[in-house]
Amino acid sequence: MTVTTIPKQSLIGQRITKRDAPEKTIGQTRYIQDMTLPGQLHAKILRSSRLHAKIISIDTAKAAALPGVHCVITAADVPEQRPIGVKKDQLPLKTDRVRSYRDEIAAVAADSPEIAAAALRLIEVVYEDLPPLTDPKLSKLPDAPRLHDAPDNVALTFAYKHGDVAEGEAESDFVIEDEFSLHFVTHCCMGVSGVIAEFEPSGNLTLYSNTQVPFLHKRDFAELLNIDPGRIRIIQPPIGGGFGSKLDIYPFEPICIYLARRTGRPVKLVFSREEEFIASPTRQPLTVTLRSGVKKDGALTFRTVRTLLDNGAYTSWGATTPFVMMQTFSSLYRVAHCDYYTEAVYTNNPYSGSFRGYGNLQATFAVEQHMDRLAELLGMDGLEFRLKNAQDRGEVTLQGLHFKSCGLKECLSVAAERSDYRQKRERHQAQQAAPGTIKRGVGMASMLHVGGGAKIYPSDGCGSILKLDDFAHVTLMTGASEIGQGSETVLAQLVCEELGIPLDAVTVINNDTDITPWDVGVHASRTTFVAGNSAIGAARKARDKILAAAAKVTNLHADQLDLRAGYIVRAEDGEALMPLAKMLRSLHFSDMAELVITSHYYEPPSKHQDKDYKGDVSAAYAWATHVVEIELDTATGIVRLDKVTAAHDVGRVINQLGIEGQIEGGIVMGQGYAITEHLMFEDGLCLNPNFRDYKLVTAPEIPEMDITFIETMDGEGPQGAKGVGEAPAICMAAAVANAIENATGVRLTSLPFTPERVYRALTEARR
Amino acid sequence: MTVTTIPKQSLIGQRITKRDAPEKTIGQTRYIQDMTLPGQLHAKILRSSRLHAKIISIDTAKAAALPGVHCVITAADVPEQRPIGVKKDQLPLKTDRVRSYRDEIAAVAADSPEIAAAALRLIEVVYEDLPPLTDPKLSKLPDAPRLHDAPDNVALTFAYKHGDVAEGEAESDFVIEDEFSLHFVTHCCMGVSGVIAEFEPSGNLTLYSNTQVPFLHKRDFAELLNIDPGRIRIIQPPIGGGFGSKLDIYPFEPICIYLARRTGRPVKLVFSREEEFIASPTRQPLTVTLRSGVKKDGALTFRTVRTLLDNGAYTSWGATTPFVMMQTFSSLYRVAHCDYYTEAVYTNNPYSGSFRGYGNLQATFAVEQHMDRLAELLGMDGLEFRLKNAQDRGEVTLQGLHFKSCGLKECLSVAAERSDYRQKRERHQAQQAAPGTIKRGVGMASMLHVGGGAKIYPSDGCGSILKLDDFAHVTLMTGASEIGQGSETVLAQLVCEELGIPLDAVTVINNDTDITPWDVGVHASRTTFVAGNSAIGAARKARDKILAAAAKVTNLHADQLDLRAGYIVRAEDGEALMPLAKMLRSLHFSDMAELVITSHYYEPPSKHQDKDYKGDVSAAYAWATHVVEIELDTATGIVRLDKVTAAHDVGRVINQLGIEGQIEGGIVMGQGYAITEHLMFEDGLCLNPNFRDYKLVTAPEIPEMDITFIETMDGEGPQGAKGVGEAPAICMAAAVANAIENATGVRLTSLPFTPERVYRALTEARR
Repeated sequence: MTVTTIPKQSLIGQRITKRDAPEKTIGQTRYIQDMTLPGQLHAKILRSSRLHAKIISIDTAKAAALPGVHCVITAADVPEQRPIGVKKDQLPLKTDRVRSYRDEIAAVAADSPEIAAAALRLIEVVYEDLPPLTDPKLSKLPDAPRLHDAPDNVALTFAYKHGDVAEGEAESDFVIEDEFSLHFVTHCCMGVSGVIAEFEPSGNLTLYSNTQVPFLHKRDFAELLNIDPGRIRIIQPPIGGGFGSKLDIYPFEPICIYLARRTGRPVKLVFSREEEFIASPTRQPLTVTLRSGVKKDGALTFRTVRTLLDNGAYTSWGATTPFVMMQTFSSLYRVAHCDYYTEAVYTNNPYSGSFRGYGNLQATFAVEQHMDRLAELLGMDGLEFRLKNAQDRGEVTLQGLHFKSCGLKECLSVAAERSDYRQKRERHQAQQAAPGTIKRGVGMASMLHVGGGAKIYPSDGCGSILKLDDFAHVTLMTGASEIGQGSETVLAQLVCEELGIPLDAVTVINNDTDITPWDVGVHASRTTFVAGNSAIGAARKARDKILAAAAKVTNLHADQLDLRAGYIVRAEDGEALMPLAKMLRSLHFSDMAELVITSHYYEPPSKHQDKDYKGDVSAAYAWATHVVEIELDTATGIVRLDKVTAAHDVGRVINQLGIEGQIEGGIVMGQGYAITEHLMFEDGLCLNPNFRDYKLVTAPEIPEMDITFIETMDGEGPQGAKGVGEAPAICMAAAVANAIENATGVRLTSLPFTPERVYRALTEARR
Repeated sequence: MTVTTIPKQSLIGQRITKRDAPEKTIGQTRYIQDMTLPGQLHAKILRSSRLHAKIISIDTAKAAALPGVHCVITAADVPEQRPIGVKKDQLPLKTDRVRSYRDEIAAVAADSPEIAAAALRLIEVVYEDLPPLTDPKLSKLPDAPRLHDAPDNVALTFAYKHGDVAEGEAESDFVIEDEFSLHFVTHCCMGVSGVIAEFEPSGNLTLYSNTQVPFLHKRDFAELLNIDPGRIRIIQPPIGGGFGSKLDIYPFEPICIYLARRTGRPVKLVFSREEEFIASPTRQPLTVTLRSGVKKDGALTFRTVRTLLDNGAYTSWGATTPFVMMQTFSSLYRVAHCDYYTEAVYTNNPYSGSFRGYGNLQATFAVEQHMDRLAELLGMDGLEFRLKNAQDRGEVTLQGLHFKSCGLKECLSVAAERSDYRQKRERHQAQQAAPGTIKRGVGMASMLHVGGGAKIYPSDGCGSILKLDDFAHVTLMTGASEIGQGSETVLAQLVCEELGIPLDAVTVINNDTDITPWDVGVHASRTTFVAGNSAIGAARKARDKILAAAAKVTNLHADQLDLRAGYIVRAEDGEALMPLAKMLRSLHFSDMAELVITSHYYEPPSKHQDKDYKGDVSAAYAWATHVVEIELDTATGIVRLDKVTAAHDVGRVINQLGIEGQIEGGIVMGQGYAITEHLMFEDGLCLNPNFRDYKLVTAPEIPEMDITFIETMDGEGPQGAKGVGEAPAICMAAAVANAIENATGVRLTSLPFTPERVYRALTEARR
């Protein structure tokens, strides 16, 4: 008798190709652009041609008469409109006033996008200009016009405090203060914004949508349309990137729905690339005034932070990024006193949304430059200074964040050591005044970010349903959406790990609210952590059921059995006892007659913060240190990134290939934020809504990368993992600023570090 | 304080519009014809132009060279072909021989259906004719050519026996024998056969298919393609009728898959109407020789049955219909001795599939005519004679069928009484010889059919997953497919009944093997019964979970609570305690944090029959009696149906509107089988492959109907219901034959009763 033994093997930490990669590579992936429903109409939106104006009249008669046009709507045609956004401060179609160039005035549904575009050109709008407001500082002036019913044009404020900064300042040996200025950039998803809306005769609405938050949108759209949320089904086609841009409801979505309702036809509205630049959200621009103190022994004493956010014309998630910023000020390093206050102020600029890192790039830009400046004042090495103030495992910060795992010190040490940070920094500093225009610099920055979701909504959880078929093929229905981040692959791995089956035996269904259980959405670096734990929970229930049934057949205890390579094996020696598929069929095709179907809802053990923003908001926290090495030509202002040495506390690596991709992509996104990307506005008008003038980092500019994963094996994380989706973008700009200072002795506090801006800054500093 | 009380209300037995009716009515339903996948190619099949021939050569060069053609295949191009069908006696693409006009020789995939059709015309095939065989009696002759490796050309035999017919015949006072002849008809689904095949880069196959048995096909196609069944996903677009025609794998399906595999593109193959007539299956044609006996007291003594099935060129489900036929011979009435033997014999005719009633129309046609003949011999009234021999509740027949509920006697009595059967029959009989060519007749027939599935496969079960969202909207994921029969509506009703929610709060997902749990398929009148019980099982688990949680909140016991109209109420007085949605949210958004998701697999308590075909094969049995009234013009042979009085033991009515539709549709289908429909062949060539020459019953010919539902409240049925999908078609032809005899004194034993055939029969009888 041949006995087959199967050793225990693990998929965790392996290099797994993303499951959607082959389709994407050969062009088989069907994005929303590729979808055509029978009878589908195409919609286009007419946007304001004025920055700030009264709408005197809109004449749509010629547009409506154009052959192939099915419907033209303005606000007057949709009296049922309800306001949208975080503050409900805009209507999808504007009524009597426009407040920015992107403002939606009218929309057309036609047989083709070309006809819809032609119809837009036939709409005649008469405006009466109003005074412009494009600087948030000016918006607050008493005589500034009011953009909304908001005193001083202030849309939102956030105030956070621990300790007493006055006391902190009093005990400080050194105190510094700087103003940092952060610019407009945008997400540049390859998959632009789009939606197809279709009503059934019953009045039920199906939305094919690129949203990152289908379950929240179901509720929100229901409120907007005044229908039962149960009547809305959201199906997500494959999404070509989100990065936070698809978290809110934007005017184009209800507009498309109104057109579908009026025409009784499916209506598709997909942005052009130019429209995506103009009318999709931006990263939140702001100024940060940071005042910090330190004692001679190197202990941080206090931080006073004032930030002013350019809220734009309406309020979306960008205005709420202070919620994340304050964590970096309060908790990236130990600091006994902290006072944070911010205002988001209306202007006629575009409004900002959430964007990978959610305010943390901006906060870290300020904090990590101050860490270098304070170290310099102390005459301490920047690494040593950071290590002295760094948080440790087990600590609960004064904001209430509980670091059950924490690899910050290891990140700092490893990144410094692998990059030879100290020696290079000394060497480059010494060369600042040397002849020649080519300077080298090395800069360090660290970051803290949520790594296990963030409890903002009533639940931060995710549900999973697992279905095993007669052939040991598994379907995982998860609430978590795949937006290109590779979650489908990681979730499949986690299921396979529990059930001892090959990866290609798993199908992941993750894009239909009628089928998948609830999930709060793709944000806050939560998917691997929260959806991963949910999938594991469902898989363990299936495993238990299978092993209990196998125990009966084999006369062994369930805990003497294991699942490996599609077999039920004896755990002790791996002897294959029965194919899993056969076991499943014997359950199905027996008097017991049952299928293995399980479900699990995972809610992370995080807490809602109190009204003072205190509390352990995430189930885990991610840490990272980046050391960047640059070459800067003082004659041209060109900053080139040579190398990034990154160390990330990721808890544990699930998919080595996937997480490398996440870190690499994040580094490049952070690099773009620091050096090349700048969405430019002149009097509120976007000057560069295209990829020729908006400079994304391209392949030749991508630096060498040395990435180390610090595996702190988070106790709550799925297989020990923590979320890392946002982390790698966060500390790049700060590290580049520190490297520029190391190269030139000049500290730049305004982003981006484009050649012209760097050159001007250096020239000014020399004067 | 206002107390709202909600009385207990039930949806069971209400008149509920089918859920898919509005979409179908306004043309929004997207059948496979409406589907277009990006990059999709269109396929067409070249069929034999000879009845029986050797293929000498096939030249596809010109076809392949036609611009827009992507691929041309013949058997030679697909060496991996495996045989298909019940006996695995044909290859999808025929190699060296064709055995019928529908035989598939080559196939083309092209940019459009028109190009594919043009390419077919460029394929040159050289044949060498072989002797034709179109009469099954001749096929069995020793010198007949052999169509397959089957002695005497016999494809299949079935033998069933109980008692000893010789003994039965010995104790008979009257013995009669007749030969009945049953013709070719076909399903005429409005939705013709079609499939779209698409491979992912991983090699996984998605089939968009009109099949009625997606889970069985998943397994069968895997075997055919030699891949893991887990790699096949079957998605069913809305299906425009099945009636059994979509139970087997037919050559066009693997051919379409081969084309998709070779082109790397999605390939769509949809039949034209003509092709549907020629190449989709037919109802099984056969001859029945029935010998029956009776004692003077009216007790049936024996039945000897010999049937000869025209198997056609290959073997599909039609050849297995004897399995059902024998139940009618053995068990529709009590008969102590029964001997049934059948052979299915190869010919060059088309082959038959399963078709609503599955052989039972044919068997009932013979049995119920003999019941009239025997009654006449006895001088007994037909009704009285039937009542005397009718089965009763609790009986176990000699074949082992256990009638846990049985309304046959009530069906007989009610149908007779409501139609005034006896009086009319006497009156019409008396008028047979009266002057004038217009004669009236009334005829009765009853039927027995499975009403709770049929345990043929290892399992006859169905799985369900139920998911409740935060708004008390429910998704039912069921293995059972909707093919127009209204199962979606009934399943939603059954779920609502348990959960006390409105019908529009349920979404039914029933068309994707990756999502829905296993089900054996739509056949054997099993869906309401089996899928219904499965859905109820899942709903009760959800109900239990909700009431247990509500009990904690209300300090009542779960059994003191009820769910009504979207509320949790006190059962005693209906006082509304809490909206269900609120309860669900409080479960979800709490420290417990759970969703209500349940699953259930229901396996009916039926048994596999033994090798002698004995055993209780269905969990319940349906009964019916139809009385038809006709007007017959002896001068033209035209038979017009005036009225049908039908009484059906359906266990319990779930959807009054839906079940009326099923009965009405079945009556019309049985009417067509009896009077108008005839798929005509001359030397194996179909003469009438179109709706002009193939006469479906049209609206003006539909008779008045009087339908009574006998509610026997089956103990195992969902809410007491039994399956009724096939029943109403079954006894129509027999009742019409009996009515013709009543009108004319002439008994017609060959279907159909078209004017020409009736006229000839009457003329011959007169001679």
